[in-house]
Amino acid sequence: MSFNTFGRVFRFTTWGESHGPALGATVDGVPPGVPLDEGFIQAFLDRRRPGTSKHTTQRREPDQVRILSGVFEGVTTGTPIQLMIENTDQRSKDYGDIATSFRPGHADITYHLKYGVRDYRGGGRSSARETAARVAAGAVAQAVLGALVPDLRIIGYMVQMGAMRLDRSRLDLSAVDGNPFFLPDTGAVQAWSDYLDGIRKDQNSVGAALEVLVQGCPPGLGAPVYAKLDTDLAAAMMSINAVKAVEIGEGMASAGLTGVDNADEIRMGPDGPEFLSNHAGGILGGISTGQDIVVRFAIKPTSSITTPRRSINARGEEIDVITKGRHDPCVGIRAVPVAEAMAACVILDHLLMDRAQTGGVRGQIG
Amino acid sequence: MSFNTFGRVFRFTTWGESHGPALGATVDGVPPGVPLDEGFIQAFLDRRRPGTSKHTTQRREPDQVRILSGVFEGVTTGTPIQLMIENTDQRSKDYGDIATSFRPGHADITYHLKYGVRDYRGGGRSSARETAARVAAGAVAQAVLGALVPDLRIIGYMVQMGAMRLDRSRLDLSAVDGNPFFLPDTGAVQAWSDYLDGIRKDQNSVGAALEVLVQGCPPGLGAPVYAKLDTDLAAAMMSINAVKAVEIGEGMASAGLTGVDNADEIRMGPDGPEFLSNHAGGILGGISTGQDIVVRFAIKPTSSITTPRRSINARGEEIDVITKGRHDPCVGIRAVPVAEAMAACVILDHLLMDRAQTGGVRGQIG
Amino acid sequence: MSFNTFGRVFRFTTWGESHGPALGATVDGVPPGVPLDEGFIQAFLDRRRPGTSKHTTQRREPDQVRILSGVFEGVTTGTPIQLMIENTDQRSKDYGDIATSFRPGHADITYHLKYGVRDYRGGGRSSARETAARVAAGAVAQAVLGALVPDLRIIGYMVQMGAMRLDRSRLDLSAVDGNPFFLPDTGAVQAWSDYLDGIRKDQNSVGAALEVLVQGCPPGLGAPVYAKLDTDLAAAMMSINAVKAVEIGEGMASAGLTGVDNADEIRMGPDGPEFLSNHAGGILGGISTGQDIVVRFAIKPTSSITTPRRSINARGEEIDVITKGRHDPCVGIRAVPVAEAMAACVILDHLLMDRAQTGGVRGQIG
Amino acid sequence: MSFNTFGRVFRFTTWGESHGPALGATVDGVPPGVPLDEGFIQAFLDRRRPGTSKHTTQRREPDQVRILSGVFEGVTTGTPIQLMIENTDQRSKDYGDIATSFRPGHADITYHLKYGVRDYRGGGRSSARETAARVAAGAVAQAVLGALVPDLRIIGYMVQMGAMRLDRSRLDLSAVDGNPFFLPDTGAVQAWSDYLDGIRKDQNSVGAALEVLVQGCPPGLGAPVYAKLDTDLAAAMMSINAVKAVEIGEGMASAGLTGVDNADEIRMGPDGPEFLSNHAGGILGGISTGQDIVVRFAIKPTSSITTPRRSINARGEEIDVITKGRHDPCVGIRAVPVAEAMAACVILDHLLMDRAQTGGVRGQIG
Repeated sequence: MSFNTFGRVFRFTTWGESHGPALGATVDGVPPGVPLDEGFIQAFLDRRRPGTSKHTTQRREPDQVRILSGVFEGVTTGTPIQLMIENTDQRSKDYGDIATSFRPGHADITYHLKYGVRDYRGGGRSSARETAARVAAGAVAQAVLGALVPDLRIIGYMVQMGAMRLDRSRLDLSAVDGNPFFLPDTGAVQAWSDYLDGIRKDQNSVGAALEVLVQGCPPGLGAPVYAKLDTDLAAAMMSINAVKAVEIGEGMASAGLTGVDNADEIRMGPDGPEFLSNHAGGILGGISTGQDIVVRFAIKPTSSITTPRRSINARGEEIDVITKGRHDPCVGIRAVPVAEAMAACVILDHLLMDRAQTGGVRGQIG
Repeated sequence: MSFNTFGRVFRFTTWGESHGPALGATVDGVPPGVPLDEGFIQAFLDRRRPGTSKHTTQRREPDQVRILSGVFEGVTTGTPIQLMIENTDQRSKDYGDIATSFRPGHADITYHLKYGVRDYRGGGRSSARETAARVAAGAVAQAVLGALVPDLRIIGYMVQMGAMRLDRSRLDLSAVDGNPFFLPDTGAVQAWSDYLDGIRKDQNSVGAALEVLVQGCPPGLGAPVYAKLDTDLAAAMMSINAVKAVEIGEGMASAGLTGVDNADEIRMGPDGPEFLSNHAGGILGGISTGQDIVVRFAIKPTSSITTPRRSINARGEEIDVITKGRHDPCVGIRAVPVAEAMAACVILDHLLMDRAQTGGVRGQIG
Repeated sequence: MSFNTFGRVFRFTTWGESHGPALGATVDGVPPGVPLDEGFIQAFLDRRRPGTSKHTTQRREPDQVRILSGVFEGVTTGTPIQLMIENTDQRSKDYGDIATSFRPGHADITYHLKYGVRDYRGGGRSSARETAARVAAGAVAQAVLGALVPDLRIIGYMVQMGAMRLDRSRLDLSAVDGNPFFLPDTGAVQAWSDYLDGIRKDQNSVGAALEVLVQGCPPGLGAPVYAKLDTDLAAAMMSINAVKAVEIGEGMASAGLTGVDNADEIRMGPDGPEFLSNHAGGILGGISTGQDIVVRFAIKPTSSITTPRRSINARGEEIDVITKGRHDPCVGIRAVPVAEAMAACVILDHLLMDRAQTGGVRGQIG
Repeated sequence: MSFNTFGRVFRFTTWGESHGPALGATVDGVPPGVPLDEGFIQAFLDRRRPGTSKHTTQRREPDQVRILSGVFEGVTTGTPIQLMIENTDQRSKDYGDIATSFRPGHADITYHLKYGVRDYRGGGRSSARETAARVAAGAVAQAVLGALVPDLRIIGYMVQMGAMRLDRSRLDLSAVDGNPFFLPDTGAVQAWSDYLDGIRKDQNSVGAALEVLVQGCPPGLGAPVYAKLDTDLAAAMMSINAVKAVEIGEGMASAGLTGVDNADEIRMGPDGPEFLSNHAGGILGGISTGQDIVVRFAIKPTSSITTPRRSINARGEEIDVITKGRHDPCVGIRAVPVAEAMAACVILDHLLMDRAQTGGVRGQIG
């Protein structure tokens, strides 16, 4: 049973609160002999770091990761890897009101109901800061995938932010890292930026939709029924703060399709089977086909806003809540590296599980 | 690690292939002393049974469940409950071509790639017949929920079938069991029926979207981060055959909302906190609020259709595939009782987990 | 969490009560493509079957196993294997008194306290009949081990029965299958037989100690700390009914040894490292060395005896308990195939886990 | 799957190597609202700390624990508790030879074979230092047990050290904390001390046997078959470094007993059932009876000794190994607090599991 653990063979447990002394991830099941150092992990954390543009919270967190165990002389040893990030910018006085009041749309009230106690500073365990630990764990997964499946590539990007939607005819993956929105369309960046400025000036926040693409995933990963690759990807994405929906391939649009349209027909290519379309998003019967895996998900708008909202406090008094402090007007932006990390963990986990059950041997065609 | 097991405390493992001698579910973690008999479970299976209208496969399966263990003198004993359904209508000669060919959009090719061998008769393990075992396990969960949370009610219904969509202004939950579509709008049944007739006559199939409502769920179920209630509901639904997307509350539409609009404001009612809206779908920070839980998901169209589609076979030859046999033109219809069953299992599992960690005690307000 | 499941990758869940309609094992994580049929499993069950000599219970159970899933055209498919054994000889009227009274030394009272209800017929879930399901699961493990590690051999035998002890200078493994005691010393069989006749005539029962030897186990199986190979072997043996102690290698005698005596010195042999002794029992730091693995365990005497013992019943009345019915005077005898089965499951599980983490690659020496 | 995790509901994962920057335990599943601070945990660590008498290694480690998460304003929050102990005394130059040579009886060779790489400094992950993390996790368990079952008490002590054995007629539990051997017989301390001095002067080491007593354990903890309370206790003890055997109650001696002698007869006492003896060690059918739980285990002698032993190195050369550095002549001594910690974790885990399944309700007698 695992309240705070993700994965089966490649497993990580995140720990830590937003304003405690530190947070991190305990990563187990890592194959031995994989080159790994703090610099490699740090590069992934830096992509997620707040305070890098006006569009994310101005909390300044260096988010420096330390490897406390499981790596020796530059390679993994197969023992648990402890990754720790110390919290340095803990201006907790900003959060005074939150101790007794419940922000609408926030975990404040459910944590209070369930546990009777909570670390209210900065959202405690429910803070998006927990995702820094995921990114660190995902970097370990990326290092192992780099050693085992060098051609595999995981790319996340935004496809919607409130009223703004990606024009798919202009999709350019090479543009993703060149703008603060992880947007695969350089020409649209200014419009997205102006739109988000307006949201922030209105003391509001806005939702987002993201897509993660896994290129070069070998076929045969996953398992029927309850360890489906898409089941685990859905759980991975849904476990990220504020995510309210997950789609694979056609996603919700599948409901409107016919079987004739939805069939991904197959022909023989020079290197084996080739699919003529990818409505399935790279997964059939819970198992990867070898095509690109396509996962999409929606993140609700930040619940911490400076526009007053009606609520109650722990004494049962009716109040108006305004959340001061430094909050992202669109938390979805910083979820891109988190989603990539989660995808990396799921793919690696299934790769290792597949080695356990089949030895990685594939059925032959032709 | 669990390839074919679902749940943490209340756990079930399904087993069996479509055309083997039997299939079933091994259910563990059941509290002792709960009244249970085969008739109670059978009622749930009968809702899912094929052959009950012209809109579902004409395979006639009585789907008679037997309890082989874990129940003594009419009550559960706390030991594993083995539920077995014998396969009686196994006209496997219908499926001859499938032994060597891969249906587009079907698990045929990925099972072949992963395992090198598969029970091709009727889809084997990938058949929707596996979901009968889920319904049986879900009936056990319903029995336990009935004993522990008598007011809890789980209702599934269709909200879309291809081009047909539920008009939410006409939603009437009392209509669900009175038509073959589990449609909460009696007035629309004829139109849906005509539409599906057309699809079938076109040798085609069609996707669907379903919604599951959990009424009367106590607050405090779930856990932060990786055992979120919505994470587990998403995994549960995504594990059902052909599901391609899962939404909680606003779902994908969250991406288009602002924080002001999305905030579920709170006031004090006579019995405690009352939410003025339910964009969240009854779950905040992974933990139930006490509001209705709202889960929606999409099922792709049946891949087994009689319109020829291009494909290959195991020898690498390019072929046209026509799937004869008896297939549902819309598998989504029969997924309604399956989704209810999965929701029951998730809710019960979290109820038992919560007893473990908090003893079921809730934090006080007021 | 697993109340009734054993293993991590190769997992089985046993189900069923002594006098219910059937019992069995749900086996998951089995590699695909391994030849398997009912006859292969039956051979293992036949070794365990009661009623084969005057020294075991005269209950006649054919213990016919059926494979209900996971095997197709003579090979495993990688999906769950359901193994069912129907109960045919259920003379439950023999057990009438037990419904309300608690046999001293038996699980009657603890089941009653924990669950408030129990299937009292034949011990229900606590019956040694549950071990038939283990033997069936173990046979599946043996089939897989036979495919993956053909030289591996698992041999169980008795080393003590009450006052009778194996003379190790006469140990002859080829003798084990030629006598009803699984005794590796043909010359001692008559004395053991006479001794047990005396015990039975005295309306008494007697304990036993067994040893399991794993020959040909590859090095590198196991893991540090909580998935040690010896940890899992200890759990496996301790989970067998009536087992009260488990030893690896020197076992309890280690407490009396010095470091100089206990060191298994190492030299280089023609094929790699060679150990000059095996105090460790083939496991160092939780990981197999490649030497013989040696596990020993003790089974307490059958608690069901016909000599009256003081006890109470569920009404709190003080009574004398005499257990009629057909009981083994030494349950330890029939535990030999059970222990072999559990050892096979543990070794296979670790072999598959090792494939997951290291790919089965070994560090080089020389 | 859990290489480095112990427990089901109350779970901890230990991490860290002997000479890395830090080690610790990630503890999950802790009930909320339990008072806990570093001082409480430190007291348990101080009992285990080396360097406190001439009989343990002279490595001076303050072993200061820090709570990094999961505790807020002096109480647990129900989120993961990260416990970190920094390594301060890392004189790794002492261990130079070990980098390439394999100590007989040590995990050096099996780690090398399995992983191809290892942190050889101070034994790395196989070091007994890992047990400091267990003691810290066990302290958390003790805090929770103190809140839930105030009368429960866990007491560990030595019963054998090489040739020295506890005279049970002189057993005095109040003596345990008054001498460096955790020996429940003050009068024997001098003899044990002289004996161990002799061992050390002989450049030798010696094994030990320990016993752990759980007083006040409620009945009904445990589960049939694979989550037996004794199964988990056996796994817990066997997972401790150098442990080679575990006994419950009569242990290996059960093999020599008859059913008449072994029966723990039952009478009614003023508060319910009373057992007239405790051959079973407090556990029947895997479930606690309410009597004292008695667990005993043997620890082999330290393999790191200064007497030369024959071995090989990683190049396959035959060498003599002498282990310099600071090693305990009897590692068993410091295992006493470790065994208490493991017992506390097992008992708490089962207490929480039992709340999940039965709600903690007990069957009635009388």
